[in-house]
Amino acid sequence: MDYRHLFSSDVPSFMRSPVREIFRKVDLSAICSFAGGYPAAVTFPVEDLRRLPGLVLDKYGTKSLQYGATQGVPELREAIAARYGVPVSKVQITTSSQQGIDVCTRILCDPGDIILTTEPTYLGALQSFKAYRADVRAISSCHSEEGAARRENLKFIYVIPDFNNPSGETMTLEERKEIVKLARELDVVIVEDSPYRELRYSGEEVPTIYSLAPERTLHLGSFSKIFAPGFRLGWIIGPEALLEQIYICKQALDLCPPVFDQYMATEFLTSGALDANLVKTKAEYRRRRDLMVSLLEKYMPAGVKWTYPEGGLFLFLTLPEGIDTIEMYDEALSKGVAYVAGSFFFLDGSHRNTMRLNFSFVAEEKMEPGLKLLAEIIKGRF
Amino acid sequence: MDYRHLFSSDVPSFMRSPVREIFRKVDLSAICSFAGGYPAAVTFPVEDLRRLPGLVLDKYGTKSLQYGATQGVPELREAIAARYGVPVSKVQITTSSQQGIDVCTRILCDPGDIILTTEPTYLGALQSFKAYRADVRAISSCHSEEGAARRENLKFIYVIPDFNNPSGETMTLEERKEIVKLARELDVVIVEDSPYRELRYSGEEVPTIYSLAPERTLHLGSFSKIFAPGFRLGWIIGPEALLEQIYICKQALDLCPPVFDQYMATEFLTSGALDANLVKTKAEYRRRRDLMVSLLEKYMPAGVKWTYPEGGLFLFLTLPEGIDTIEMYDEALSKGVAYVAGSFFFLDGSHRNTMRLNFSFVAEEKMEPGLKLLAEIIKGRF
Repeated sequence: MDYRHLFSSDVPSFMRSPVREIFRKVDLSAICSFAGGYPAAVTFPVEDLRRLPGLVLDKYGTKSLQYGATQGVPELREAIAARYGVPVSKVQITTSSQQGIDVCTRILCDPGDIILTTEPTYLGALQSFKAYRADVRAISSCHSEEGAARRENLKFIYVIPDFNNPSGETMTLEERKEIVKLARELDVVIVEDSPYRELRYSGEEVPTIYSLAPERTLHLGSFSKIFAPGFRLGWIIGPEALLEQIYICKQALDLCPPVFDQYMATEFLTSGALDANLVKTKAEYRRRRDLMVSLLEKYMPAGVKWTYPEGGLFLFLTLPEGIDTIEMYDEALSKGVAYVAGSFFFLDGSHRNTMRLNFSFVAEEKMEPGLKLLAEIIKGRF
Repeated sequence: MDYRHLFSSDVPSFMRSPVREIFRKVDLSAICSFAGGYPAAVTFPVEDLRRLPGLVLDKYGTKSLQYGATQGVPELREAIAARYGVPVSKVQITTSSQQGIDVCTRILCDPGDIILTTEPTYLGALQSFKAYRADVRAISSCHSEEGAARRENLKFIYVIPDFNNPSGETMTLEERKEIVKLARELDVVIVEDSPYRELRYSGEEVPTIYSLAPERTLHLGSFSKIFAPGFRLGWIIGPEALLEQIYICKQALDLCPPVFDQYMATEFLTSGALDANLVKTKAEYRRRRDLMVSLLEKYMPAGVKWTYPEGGLFLFLTLPEGIDTIEMYDEALSKGVAYVAGSFFFLDGSHRNTMRLNFSFVAEEKMEPGLKLLAEIIKGRF
C-alpha cells in the first residue's frame, strides 16, 4: 500500500539526525567514537539508584505510579524552583528537554515563520524547527534588508549560551545582552537551551539570558547530564502566559511527564545526592577535557584549530580550508574513528572543514589512539 | 508582555481537557468521584516494583540509564512483538499511548484534513486532533453528499473498538469489518486505539482491526492499565512505512521513550509477572463493574439506562431527555459526587442527558453511598 497521499505536509520536512543514523549503522563499541553526545556511564549515580526506587515507593506510595499533573509533580517543580530561584508557577516539567524545544516551537511557529539561531547550532533543535517547516536563519540575517521586511513572521531566537553543542563555546555577558537587546527590538521570545549549564569545569559562571529578560525567555533545562538520560526529564522556566499554552499543548502530547522518574529525580535533587554526584561528574569531565586538549596539542598538525570549552561535552575542530570532513568520514570510520562533521550544524551546510568531538562518552584509554589516528587521517589530507 | 502576536495558528485550537480541569479544582479524595479514568492503585504491582529496578541495573547495567533507540529498546520491542504475534519491525514504543495518538495525527493531518471517529469518543484524542486543526467528523457524515465531495482530505478513521472510553462498549466483528471496508473504500488509515484490550472481564475476545487490515491499521497499545500509568509507555503496531515517519518525527519530539522504565516493563512482561498481575487486576475490576451495575439497578429510577461493559474502566449512563448533566454538575459536586458529562465526548456537544462513570478508581466503600446520592440528584430532576 502506498501511503504518500495520506501524509501531512510536515512529513517531507522531517529530518533524520545524521548522528542517530551513524549509530544505526555502526557498532560504536568496536571503534573509537567521538561522535555522540552521550554522558559517561561512570557519571550515572548507580548506587543512589539502588535505593531511590524503594525510597520513592515508601515515601510517595502508589501516587508515584499513578497519572500525574501535566505541569509535572508539585514536589519536583518546587525543587527546581528552589534550585534556580524562581516561583513554582514558572516551572513546567518536560518529558526531556528535546520535548521542551519541540513544544516551544509548536506553540510559536507556523510554517514559514522565522526562527533566528546562532551557528553552529544543535541538530535536535533544527530537527524540531524543520519538522514544523519554520524558516530557520542565522541571527546575522535579521540585519539584512530582506530580513527586516519579514520581521512580522519572526517568532523566536534560539541560543545555547552555555558550552554550545557543537562548538563548546560560551556566550559572554555582553553577547547575552546583545541577544536580549535584539529580542526586545524585534519583540520576540528567546529560547535559551541550556542542558549543560551545570557542567562547568573552569572559568566564571555567566548569568542566564533568562535572568536578563525573564519576561520573554523560555529557559530549557535537562536532567540528562546531571542525573541520567534514560530518565527522559527536563524543565522549562518561563513566563506563566507562555507556560499556560505549553501546558495545554502537553495534555495532548503525552498527558504528563513520567511520574515515578520525576519522584526519583526529586529525591535525588533534594537529598543533596545530585550535587554530590555533580562534583564527581565535573571532575571526571574536566579530566577528560584536559586530556583531549593535551592530546590534540600533541598530535594535531599545525593549521588545525579547536575551541577550548569551559564546560559541556564537546569541542569543535577547524581544519585547513579544503579538507572536507564529510568526504573524509568513510576513511575515518573504516580505520576505526568516528566524529560528527561540523557542517551538519550550519544551516547552509557550510564549514565543511569542521568537526565536533565529544569527550564525555569515549573510553578514556581509547582517547589517545583515537586522536592519534584522527590526526594521521587529517595529515593525509594536507 | 503580550505574547498573542507570537503564538502559532494551532494555539487557539488547543483544548483543555474538561476532566483534567475538574481535577485541578476539586480535592477528589474528599468526594466520591466517578469522574477520572485512573486505574485502581491496588492493581499496581508494588511488590514487583521493589525488585524490578535492582534487577534492571544488574541485568542491563548502565545501558538502562543511557539514551536509547528512538524506536524503543530492542528487548521491549521484541517482547511486544512476541506477545502480539507481529515482527519487531512493526513495533514502535511510544512515550504513552497519548503520544501514539498525537504522532499519528502529526504525520497524517494538515489543518482542515478530515478524521472520522465513532461517537462518543476519547477526549484526549479530540484534544490531539483539534490541536492540529483537523476537521473531526462522525463516521456517519462520510456517507453524506458534502462528505463524499471532500474525501481527498480524509486521512484516517479513529476507533476505540474494545471497551470504548467513554461508553464501555465493544465493537462486534461485523462492525469492525464495516470499518475496514469503509477504510479500504476511502483508501485511508485506521487508528485503532486499544488501551483497555487486555482488561476483559466477560464475553468473548473479538479480533483486532489490525488483524483484519494490517496494511492500513495503526494499533495503539498502552502499559498504563496493565503496568502503571506513572511509567509513560505505550506502543504502536503498524506498517513499516508509516512507522518510519513516526520514528523520524519522534526523534524531534523526545529522542526516545524512557529507557529505564522500558527495561522495567520488559522484565515485568517477559518474567510472567504482568500476566500474573493481570489476573488479579481483572478480578478486581470485574468485581467493581458487577458492584456498580448492581448498585445502579438498585438505586437508579426507571428511565435511566446504562451500558454493560465487558471490560475496561467505564460505563455510560443515559438519563431521560431534558436532564442536563452539565447543568446538574455543580449540584452533584457540592453534594459530594463527581462524574464526567457525556456531551464532552460528542463532537457537537449533544447528548447532554448522558454521563460517564468510572468504576476503577473510586474507593469501593464509597461506591454505594456515591451512586445512591447520584440517583437521588437525578430523581430530583425528574
